[in-house]
Amino acid sequence: MTLLTDLTALLGPAHVLTGADAHRLAHDWTGTYRGSPLAAVRPADTGEVAAVVQLAARHGIPVIPVSGNTGLTGATYTENGLLLSLERLNRIREIRPGSRLAVVEAGVILSRLHEAAEGHGLYFPLWFGARGSAMIGGVLSTNAGGSNVLRYGSTRALCLGLEVVLPDGRVLDLMSELHKDNSGYDLRDLFIGAEGTLGIITAAVMKLVPAPRAHATAALAMGSLPDALTLLNRLQEASGGLVEAFEFMPETYSRRLAQVRPDLGLPFAAIPPVTILVELGATAPFLAEPDAGGTPRLTALLQETLARAMEEGLVHDAVIAASEAQSRALWARREAAAEITFAKRPFIDTDIAVPLDRAEAFLTEIHARLAAFAPTAETLTVAHLGDGNLHFTVFPEADDPAFHDRVVETIEDVVQSLRGSFSAEHGVGLSKRNSMARRKDPVALDVMRAVKSALDPDNRMNPGKVLPE
Amino acid sequence: MTLLTDLTALLGPAHVLTGADAHRLAHDWTGTYRGSPLAAVRPADTGEVAAVVQLAARHGIPVIPVSGNTGLTGATYTENGLLLSLERLNRIREIRPGSRLAVVEAGVILSRLHEAAEGHGLYFPLWFGARGSAMIGGVLSTNAGGSNVLRYGSTRALCLGLEVVLPDGRVLDLMSELHKDNSGYDLRDLFIGAEGTLGIITAAVMKLVPAPRAHATAALAMGSLPDALTLLNRLQEASGGLVEAFEFMPETYSRRLAQVRPDLGLPFAAIPPVTILVELGATAPFLAEPDAGGTPRLTALLQETLARAMEEGLVHDAVIAASEAQSRALWARREAAAEITFAKRPFIDTDIAVPLDRAEAFLTEIHARLAAFAPTAETLTVAHLGDGNLHFTVFPEADDPAFHDRVVETIEDVVQSLRGSFSAEHGVGLSKRNSMARRKDPVALDVMRAVKSALDPDNRMNPGKVLPE
Repeated sequence: MTLLTDLTALLGPAHVLTGADAHRLAHDWTGTYRGSPLAAVRPADTGEVAAVVQLAARHGIPVIPVSGNTGLTGATYTENGLLLSLERLNRIREIRPGSRLAVVEAGVILSRLHEAAEGHGLYFPLWFGARGSAMIGGVLSTNAGGSNVLRYGSTRALCLGLEVVLPDGRVLDLMSELHKDNSGYDLRDLFIGAEGTLGIITAAVMKLVPAPRAHATAALAMGSLPDALTLLNRLQEASGGLVEAFEFMPETYSRRLAQVRPDLGLPFAAIPPVTILVELGATAPFLAEPDAGGTPRLTALLQETLARAMEEGLVHDAVIAASEAQSRALWARREAAAEITFAKRPFIDTDIAVPLDRAEAFLTEIHARLAAFAPTAETLTVAHLGDGNLHFTVFPEADDPAFHDRVVETIEDVVQSLRGSFSAEHGVGLSKRNSMARRKDPVALDVMRAVKSALDPDNRMNPGKVLPE
Repeated sequence: MTLLTDLTALLGPAHVLTGADAHRLAHDWTGTYRGSPLAAVRPADTGEVAAVVQLAARHGIPVIPVSGNTGLTGATYTENGLLLSLERLNRIREIRPGSRLAVVEAGVILSRLHEAAEGHGLYFPLWFGARGSAMIGGVLSTNAGGSNVLRYGSTRALCLGLEVVLPDGRVLDLMSELHKDNSGYDLRDLFIGAEGTLGIITAAVMKLVPAPRAHATAALAMGSLPDALTLLNRLQEASGGLVEAFEFMPETYSRRLAQVRPDLGLPFAAIPPVTILVELGATAPFLAEPDAGGTPRLTALLQETLARAMEEGLVHDAVIAASEAQSRALWARREAAAEITFAKRPFIDTDIAVPLDRAEAFLTEIHARLAAFAPTAETLTVAHLGDGNLHFTVFPEADDPAFHDRVVETIEDVVQSLRGSFSAEHGVGLSKRNSMARRKDPVALDVMRAVKSALDPDNRMNPGKVLPE
């Protein structure tokens, strides 16, 4: 029997896709990676995932898990492997508001979890532009970040338990609801961020948090990145750590936004050197209540801090959202980042992290080095500044692989000199395997390879991803 | 050459201990485990640790790392292995207040890190009774918890980077200062909590947090555990999650405290069914400032919430600390837990975690089951209630191994039926290996064994710990 016959017998013909149907699932949305899978299957539950993995093992065919396919690193690319879509594992199995947790399957779309939590007065605090398509399985497998990491941590910090189908088809039950558990090695965090190379995450226990009763959101016109960091520290100090997002958009970003999405407008009449989107969130009732002047105390706290900063010339101008609609408009300008980046081709995008106090050094140094060999290349920066996480994009004039490599290696050189990482929140996939080979501690690479071999000796789970050859 | 000759040549005779000198390091402070190591060595730095591990490998001798030796599970016990003490790796390499981090070596005593952070207006929020002896290496290797986990997480949540000497003597450099880094598998969290069985942690980058400007601490007389959880939720809601500790001491605890440490006194004239020690901490200036009546706002917030709870009969009485000395007195009663437990022998101590809403079910069920076969055995409970983490101790009348096993298995049965863990914050060591064998998902055990074999194929790093045979 062929694998396809076996799969069809197992799942039914509607859930074994080939040809154009399978290829549709093999295209990530950047359009950079277009795989050609042997087939794509859509198992209905964990048992079927395990059965598919066992069948694939018997036939010696690699398995590549895919969920929302919103990744940016080609992590679901395959030639002739079996794409395993988690989209039908889409149940929110349980929400326990008293324990503030949700038990969800890998195919649940992030925004569905947002809505479900909201229905219980709670919040799932992982937030990024692709939330309407990204699914929990992929979010966990890449340890996704986003705009709220500053306050709530990355996906790893929001996960209590996991269910994983191992490369041999056995199901690993780590579905703990506990906040403290020291019974053996931390396997959960090994599978989180492993991009499907060690097994397939099928379900998870995720933490929920109290929904903020009040938000205060503002766009700020500022003079420089160091000024922005000074302000971030003041806001954290004044609010006791209530900053949920602190997004950095320099002049080049605003210009490109005005060009590609003129409909979104800009907050300031003249484009400032730096625009910051800041959001504070408060769960305590006393911060949501109005002060003597009728302003919610959280907003008043933001206003007071900004007023002092403006007196000093640290902040040049500010637009504080007076309504939910105004807040959404401020966010729309930040969330257009991927769209305005990928609208221009070719592009060389990066996802780097540096220690917070070295973010300015990165930008100064990389622009100086690029000026030496690519003086006319446009660049674009947008950053989760509170995490030291910069998305720095270079638009070369032509699609020249040698030039591309030179740019990437130059960026890596600068990042490494600042003890940063070439991959902050998007993962490695295919696109950063060369960076792994060049920049990761060789001892760390050896340990990773030993773990991979121990768990997947035949290299059948998403082979060729994360680890360099 | 013998190993001892080699070690002496490497470290000097002052740092290779044998006989009584070595045995002193081989006794943990519970007095339960008394090992007899071949020798104990005290390397000075990471390079010497690596050289010792290489020498031991050449001679085929197991290596058992030890730091503060305040563990409760026999994790440093050895017969004829080489004890490797981290006590001389005691430098705080760097504190970077701007980035809120400390770079510390494994032999730094926890309270020294507290003091060093305080010197910069910062706080290292890991807090437990043994903080004056416990060292960072052991704290990381057991993923230690304590009283502040509710607010700040366990040790794992406080660690950004690690330096590890691998079983082959190579040094793994994971000394990241980054809050976001997705460059390959999460090796850091694999070594944290591995109790020295995968390698020896020699240094770490630890997070610091802003020091609270105000604390509000109180002892509360309450009627039951569920009432206490209701109050915890109200305090979290009213304060926006500012509860730093929520410690549960039932009547039996207070009685035993009065008996063993009468000098510490008790907060209430009549011992209530439940005494709660609660502490709130605030970093925001507006909560540290006095209100119109001159009371710091954080204290006022606690007072108001308690006043409402007392009107309803949820809280029967309360003592709010009016000074630092009064707060210390309240804490001393909680921190005497280990002392009053281990003063009576024999004891069967446990460290379990259950989902928060099942803590009462655990106590009800375990007492009912013990009544059936051990009606006269005294018990003692003290809990980090906010984490669902209970230290439940049984004092059998005689030191009967069969009875001991029956008690432990009964506790495990109840914990497992509630989807809890037999090890919340103390780890596995030797004492909970049988629990691992009986209670851990067999697939998880297989994966752990595969990881152990991959990283330590000759089983030389702290052999016989964590994983059952």
